[in-house]
Amino acid sequence: MRQSTTMLTIATPGQGMHEVTRQIASWLDGEGYDTGLLTIFCRHTSASLLIQENAAPAARRDVERYFARIAPESSDYEHDDEGPDDMPAHLRSALTQTQLSIPVIDGALALGTWQGIYLFEHRRRPHRRTLALHMLGE
Amino acid sequence: MRQSTTMLTIATPGQGMHEVTRQIASWLDGEGYDTGLLTIFCRHTSASLLIQENAAPAARRDVERYFARIAPESSDYEHDDEGPDDMPAHLRSALTQTQLSIPVIDGALALGTWQGIYLFEHRRRPHRRTLALHMLGE
Amino acid sequence: MRQSTTMLTIATPGQGMHEVTRQIASWLDGEGYDTGLLTIFCRHTSASLLIQENAAPAARRDVERYFARIAPESSDYEHDDEGPDDMPAHLRSALTQTQLSIPVIDGALALGTWQGIYLFEHRRRPHRRTLALHMLGE
Repeated sequence: MRQSTTMLTIATPGQGMHEVTRQIASWLDGEGYDTGLLTIFCRHTSASLLIQENAAPAARRDVERYFARIAPESSDYEHDDEGPDDMPAHLRSALTQTQLSIPVIDGALALGTWQGIYLFEHRRRPHRRTLALHMLGE
Repeated sequence: MRQSTTMLTIATPGQGMHEVTRQIASWLDGEGYDTGLLTIFCRHTSASLLIQENAAPAARRDVERYFARIAPESSDYEHDDEGPDDMPAHLRSALTQTQLSIPVIDGALALGTWQGIYLFEHRRRPHRRTLALHMLGE
Repeated sequence: MRQSTTMLTIATPGQGMHEVTRQIASWLDGEGYDTGLLTIFCRHTSASLLIQENAAPAARRDVERYFARIAPESSDYEHDDEGPDDMPAHLRSALTQTQLSIPVIDGALALGTWQGIYLFEHRRRPHRRTLALHMLGE
C-alpha cells in the first residue's frame, strides 16, 4: 500500500461549473495505481466541488441558475466586506461539497458513465483555486 | 493493510429514500475487517446518498417532501429532454451526497444508534442503481 | 501504513456552528502522521459538519440564519414528537455533511488558510455529540 499527494491549481474564468475530471484523471494515470481511494479536497470556502451530469450543457446551466436562486445575492447579509457575491459564495459552498472521495478500480476512477467532477466557482471574478489530491492504494 | 471493492446493485421502486444499511453491512461482514474506512460511491447524477434517522418513517417522509419542495418539478428548466423529474433529480443529488465514507471500528460501521444509510432515488420510475463500495483497512 | 481511531465528544451550547478544528488537529498531532487521510464522521442526524470561513464571525452568523430560513421550524412537518426544532435539524443535516475527509500533507491537515471545521448543532438545547475520527497513513 502506498500514497501520493499533489496540489492541483485551477484558473477559473469566474462564476460557474468548471469540469476538472480530465486534469484529475491525468494526474492519477501518472501515479500508476490499480485499486485505491482518491480524495479531492477544495481549499476554499467560496468555491466547491460537485459531481454532475457531464453530457448536457443545459443541465449544467440549470444547476448554476438554481444555486443562484436558492442562495442569492442580497443586501440582507451581515457579512458584505468582500462584495455582494461573497456571502452567497459561502452559502453555495455549504450546500455542495468541499471534499469528494472516489474509489479507483481496475486502474480508473469508478465514475458512472454520465458523471463529471466539477469545480464550482462561486465568485464573479476569475480566481486561482487549489485542490489537494490524495491517493491511497496499490 | 488491504482493500476490497465491489459493485452493489440496488433496484429502487421509484422516488424516495431506500435504506441500504443492511446490504452494505452484510458485504462488509463477509470481508472480515476489524478497522478501516468504507467508502460508498453512487455512480449516478439522478440518485444520491444520505445518512438519516432510521427509526421514524414520518421523518423520512418529511425529508422526501422537503426536497420535492426546494427542488421542485417545474417548466422553468432549460434541460427537460428526459422528462419533468429529470432536472429536479440532478438538483436534489447536488444538495445531498454522491459519496459517503464511514469509519469501521471494532469490526462494525461507526454509525450512531439512529443513523441509517439511504439511497435517495430522485426519478419517478423504478431504476437499477449501482453503488461502488471500497474498503481499506485490516 | 497504519491507522488510528478515536471518539471525540463535543459539548455544544445549543444551536449554531462550533469550531472543532483545534480539537481535531490536537488529536492528530499526538498520533504523529506525516501523510494520510483523516476522516471525521458525525454520529448524529440532528447535528452535522461543515467547512467554512474561520475569520469572520458575521459570515458564520449569516450561514446560521440562512439554514434557519431554508429549513425553518414549521407546523407543517409530520414528524414532531421531539419538538419543533427536531425536523428542521434533520433537514439542515441533510443539506450539509455527516462526513468529511481531509488529506494530511507534511504532518498537517491540508486546510486552506481561511477554512475551519465546524460542528453544526441544529437542536436548541445543549447536546453531547460524538465524532468518530479515523486516520490512515504513515
